[in-house]
Parts: sequence; C-alpha cells; structure tokens
Amino acid sequence: MELSKRAIDIQASPIRKLAPYADEAKAKGIHVYHLNIGQPDIETPKEIMDVYKHFDEKVLSYGPSQGLLKYRQSLVRYYEKHNMPLKTDDIIVTTAGSEAIIFALLATCNAGDEVIVPEPFYTNYNGFASIAGVHIKPLTTYAEDGFALPSNEKIIECITDKTKAILFSNPGNPTGAVYLKNDLERLADIALKHNLYLISDEVYREFVYDGLSHTSILHINEIEDHAIMVDSISKRYSACGARIGCIISRDRVLMQAILKFAQARLCPPTIDQLAANAAVDIEDAYFIDVLQEYDKRRNIVYNEIQQIEGVVCVKPEGAFYIIVKLPIDDAEDFAKWMLEEFSDNNETVMFAPAEGFYATPGLGRNEVRLAYILNENALKRAMFLFRKGLQEYMEKK
Amino acid sequence: MELSKRAIDIQASPIRKLAPYADEAKAKGIHVYHLNIGQPDIETPKEIMDVYKHFDEKVLSYGPSQGLLKYRQSLVRYYEKHNMPLKTDDIIVTTAGSEAIIFALLATCNAGDEVIVPEPFYTNYNGFASIAGVHIKPLTTYAEDGFALPSNEKIIECITDKTKAILFSNPGNPTGAVYLKNDLERLADIALKHNLYLISDEVYREFVYDGLSHTSILHINEIEDHAIMVDSISKRYSACGARIGCIISRDRVLMQAILKFAQARLCPPTIDQLAANAAVDIEDAYFIDVLQEYDKRRNIVYNEIQQIEGVVCVKPEGAFYIIVKLPIDDAEDFAKWMLEEFSDNNETVMFAPAEGFYATPGLGRNEVRLAYILNENALKRAMFLFRKGLQEYMEKK
Repeated sequence: MELSKRAIDIQASPIRKLAPYADEAKAKGIHVYHLNIGQPDIETPKEIMDVYKHFDEKVLSYGPSQGLLKYRQSLVRYYEKHNMPLKTDDIIVTTAGSEAIIFALLATCNAGDEVIVPEPFYTNYNGFASIAGVHIKPLTTYAEDGFALPSNEKIIECITDKTKAILFSNPGNPTGAVYLKNDLERLADIALKHNLYLISDEVYREFVYDGLSHTSILHINEIEDHAIMVDSISKRYSACGARIGCIISRDRVLMQAILKFAQARLCPPTIDQLAANAAVDIEDAYFIDVLQEYDKRRNIVYNEIQQIEGVVCVKPEGAFYIIVKLPIDDAEDFAKWMLEEFSDNNETVMFAPAEGFYATPGLGRNEVRLAYILNENALKRAMFLFRKGLQEYMEKK
Repeated sequence: MELSKRAIDIQASPIRKLAPYADEAKAKGIHVYHLNIGQPDIETPKEIMDVYKHFDEKVLSYGPSQGLLKYRQSLVRYYEKHNMPLKTDDIIVTTAGSEAIIFALLATCNAGDEVIVPEPFYTNYNGFASIAGVHIKPLTTYAEDGFALPSNEKIIECITDKTKAILFSNPGNPTGAVYLKNDLERLADIALKHNLYLISDEVYREFVYDGLSHTSILHINEIEDHAIMVDSISKRYSACGARIGCIISRDRVLMQAILKFAQARLCPPTIDQLAANAAVDIEDAYFIDVLQEYDKRRNIVYNEIQQIEGVVCVKPEGAFYIIVKLPIDDAEDFAKWMLEEFSDNNETVMFAPAEGFYATPGLGRNEVRLAYILNENALKRAMFLFRKGLQEYMEKK
C-alpha cells in the first residue's frame, strides 16, 4: 500500500531524533541532563491543579466548539490586562497552540500556497505546514545579530504571488529573540502593502527579560483583518499537558471560517479548559517569581557560554532558549558523541542540534539550542558538562 | 483579505445550524428536549472521575506523541478482551476520534484524492475531508433496508483512479446500522483487489443490540496493511469532554508515518489519558447495564415511530441513533417549525434534519435523526411531542 506524499515528506521531529542515544546512555547508568526540550520544571500552579481535584459534574460532556464561554470571558480579562481589548467572539479555544497554528494555516492558505517564516524556527511549523499543504519560505536570521528581524528589503524578497502570510514566534523559539514594536510595525506595513496575514505565535509572552515589555501583534493598529494571534497556556503556567491554547483575530469573517474547522473536531478538552480558566486570575507576583527564576538561569547559561572560546551568542531577551554557534563543524555529531562517548562522574548533557530548526539546507549545522529549564544547580552542572564535553570533543576531532 | 478556498467551502455544522431557533424557544420559556446531538446523559464512571481528583504530579507535563505507554499497554489489554491481539506500537493515542480520522486521511490520501463513504454519514467527516483536502464520494444507502451496505457492484462503481480508501462507521452514526462479518469481508475483498485502505470508525463498538456481537475491521484476516481502526472513549464511557481517542493499524510503516503527524502536535492531553487509562478495567457489568438502558430507549423511540403512519424506519441494531423517513417534504422546515411554532404544555423537541448527513444533493430531505440519549420518562415525553408536532405540522401544511 502506498502512503500519501505528505506522509512520506513530513519531517520526523529532529528534537526527538537523538532520544534513542539518550536512552542508551541511561541504560548504561549515565545521568542525562536534558537541555534539549522545552518542558519546564516549574510547578504547575495550585489554582490549576485544584480544578482537577474539585471537578464534580456527573457527566464529562462536550463543550462548545469555540471553547467554554466562561473561559473565553476570562481570556478577555487576561488580554485586557495586557492592553488588548477583545470580545469573546474574537477568541476560539484550541487544543494547544498546535491546533491554533494548523487552523490559521488552513484558513488563510490554499494547498500549495507559501508562508514566510524567519528561520531558525520552531520545528513543528514544518509539520503544521505539511498537514495544511503549505510551503514554508524561510527568511534567514543570524546568530551574529541575535536573530534580529531582517530588513524590509530581505523580507519583501521572500514574497511571491503564492505568499499568503508571515508566521513567526515572538518571543522566538528557538532563538529567544524579541520583536519590538518597531519590528512589528515594519511587518504590519509589509502585510498591508502585500495583502498578507501576520500569524504571531506569542506563547512565550510572559518570558521577556531586561525590563522589556512584550508587544503583541494585537497592539498594532489598523491591521485588524491581517493579524492572527496564537497563544497557549503550556509555558505560561507550566501546564504543557493540559493542551489548551487559543487563536485570536478581530476579523469576524476569518473567525467564522475558523469556527467551521473547530466544529469539525467538536471541542477542546473540557476539564483542562476549566483548569486554564482558573489560571487566568493568578496574580502577577507569580510571573515575577517565575521570570526571576528563568532570568537567573539565562544568566547562568549565557555566562558559561561566554567562557567558551570561538562561540557566537548574543544574549537573548525572551523565551527560555539560547542558540549558540560553536567552533565545530557538526553539532549533531557532537550531540551524539556527548551521549555515546562522553561522561563525567557518570553524567552527561543532552541538547538540540540547531540544523533541524532551519529550512535552508546546510544552515545551523554548527549551532545548538539549549533550553534552560532546569534548576540552578542542575543547570550549572549541565553547563559544566557542556563546556568540558565540547573541549574534549574538539581535542579528539 | 481573502480566505482560503477550503475555509469558504468547509461545511458549517448542519447539526448546530438550528441552535439559534432552540435558543429563541428557550428564551420564550419553552423547555426543549434535545434528541439532536449525541451527548449521552449517562454518568461518567467513577473510575474516570477519580483520576482527576487524585492527580498529584507537581508538573502537568507533556506526554509522548504516541500517547502514554501505560495507557497504550492498557489498550492492548482492552482490545485483547475484544479478540484483537495488538502491540503497543500498533496504537497511537489521539485527541479524540476526530484527530484519529484526520490522521488517517492525511496519511493515506494526497490532496485531491477520493474516499468512498456510505451515506448518510457523520457530518464531521465533511470537515475532516476539507482539512485533508480529500473528496468524499458518497455511496448511498437506504432507509428502506436499514441502511445496509450496498452490493459489491455498487461499491465498485464508486472507485476511480483517485480512490484511496473507504471510510465508514460501524455501528453507524447516524444510521445505527451494524456491518456484520460478511459485510466487512466484502469490503476487505474490494480493498485487496483495488488497493484501498479501510478506515473503520468503531467508536460505538459497545452499542450493539439484539445479542449481536460487534465485528471489528481488525478481526478480518489478511488485510493488515489495509485496515485502519479509529476509536474513542467519548461514547463508550460517556466521557466526550475528555477528548481521548486512538488510531490503530498493524501496518508499521503507516503507523510510523502517522507518528510524524502526531509529533507535530506534541501529545494528547495528559490527565485525560490517565483518566481513560483507569476506564480500561471497568467491569463488563457496566456495559451490560448501559446497553440495557440504551436498548430500552431504542425500543421506546422505535415503538413510538411505528405508531406514525407513512414512516419508513427499520429498527437499527447499533449506536444510539434512529433515522426516520417522514411523510413530509422538508424535515428542516419541520424541525424549525417545532422550535418556532409548536409547543405543548410549554415543551417541544429538537432533532437533526438528516439532509446534512448526505453528500448527494437532495437526499435525506424528508428524514430526521433522533438520538436516544435521554432517560425513559424524558424520552417518552419527547417522542409524544414529536408525534403530536408532526401531526399538527402535516395538518397545517
């Protein structure tokens, strides 16, 4: 039997590709520090957990396709706090950010259309594009300038008659880059002139450092019918397993179309929505604490990296990832070697080779992404192992 | 801004289309009995609810893309009980049956390919087909013979060089028809001869009456690389809001491809999977009780229908739906009239016009689907209202 072309072409997760090597290391009794995935270790707030404990309906029933009204009303309140005035009809609750991006692509692109995405980008955008039959046109950004948004000229060069949207995450995964108001205004100008949608993935909104404030695509004026925002509670409240996200646009016609896709799959999970609902009123103090914790970790990782000769790494201002360009040829080979050959006191560290985050062949081969999702002591040890391993690897090769 | 063609073309839920009329009736103080949707009123088992209450991990984290190993092991045990020997790798847990069908279509069909579906069919198949860019070729079945599977000749007539699969639900929603072993063997023969996948939606497996036993597509021999089974806990345990389903095939290459789609969306909801896991060992006595309850309801609805002159309705043997062909021209008009004009003692009844379940234009216009998901007394009252309303409607028109 013949599989579909898209089933053959869709990218296997490059992040999970090294998992068997980690499993083997563990089987040999080696402790592996995981800097390779974005699973935070921060405790999920009690407000969320309590909802599961106290659910006492008799029937675990379907909710509405657009999400529970109560939760959408709470989200209106949440976004209000972030200076985004919205109506409940501007919001459709989704099964995590993943489904929100799939809906955005399905509603804005025909099969064969193109979406511009600054690279390196979240690898699952490839999978979503395969599902929607959309081609990703990469807009290359560079470690040397902290993966800043390229010039208008460079962006416009990527536009063809098939381009329907620009998709980006802000703050960026895997880059940690933060697009400021000025960047978003540049994108808005281009979107208006070239009739493009802007799909802004803002799941790391709360993770912005150095006193910067986050600018949402919904803060930009006069692009109501171009701006689509994608969000998720996964990172915000360390609730990745709840699978609750949303898609937001003030364009009523677009939202009505997206509702039809949402109706096909009936609804997002019910109790998880109630849990997400309880999180909306968590006090700001929670985020101040969490942000301090991540900022401390960011500094640990960044300072350790600075001690390695020949690396390129501008300190990122958002999310909880750092991409580092290393003075080696093949970061995947290095990552495997760390799992197969290296250990110090029976410990090693796992990280993500960055090539999988690029769509342009050959780019990112000497880069790795480090997710700083471990506590201070574990992270210090992991970064020591990273440095020691890299030194040994470079001496051997 | 221009939406995608698929966003314009995708069908709005025909079942939800009448909701505004029901809301208006309710606003006027009229009680509406809902026979229009498949939301069971049966209590969700305590085994499931207790999992939510007792979840005590500190972090609500991602699970594996193929689903929690523990849950897949439990599913192997569940299917073993139903005479389907499986390995954990044959199973990928999905966000409800909806996602499972989308994955099946994405993996077996290219955009533009065709899938044969016996009509009337679950309307959301239209939405899934739109998402996957697949065309549904309807294979018409008839109220007069209980929506039995048509002859091989009729099925083969639907096959073109673009046909990749036959998708069907067994027991059938909205027909209640049950395909027996002989039917599935006919489909298997055709699938083998014409190189087609068989996508069998078996979410109503436990709801088979009159002492019949359910035959799964996985019971049929020698079609390991043609058979795809889609399942869900929504109806089985009255847990629609958990959004847990799965996709099963013994074809390893197919499952590896589907895993790539699954990796893109990371994972199904974590606690809901644990809840589903606890349900696997619910004793058979539970299903005997539930089945008796539904059987009683089936008889109430069927017996009431038999008292209406001029209807066509063969007693269905599965699921919890009955399609009735009425001696009127326009069942949607009747359904609206019941909500807008009719009431008896301030009560009325809502049901689904069947036209939306057909892909062939014009078919099903004089048919309705009744979901028998209310308790005995409510159902008797609802059916009384249905009969009384129909009589008045026919006298007025």
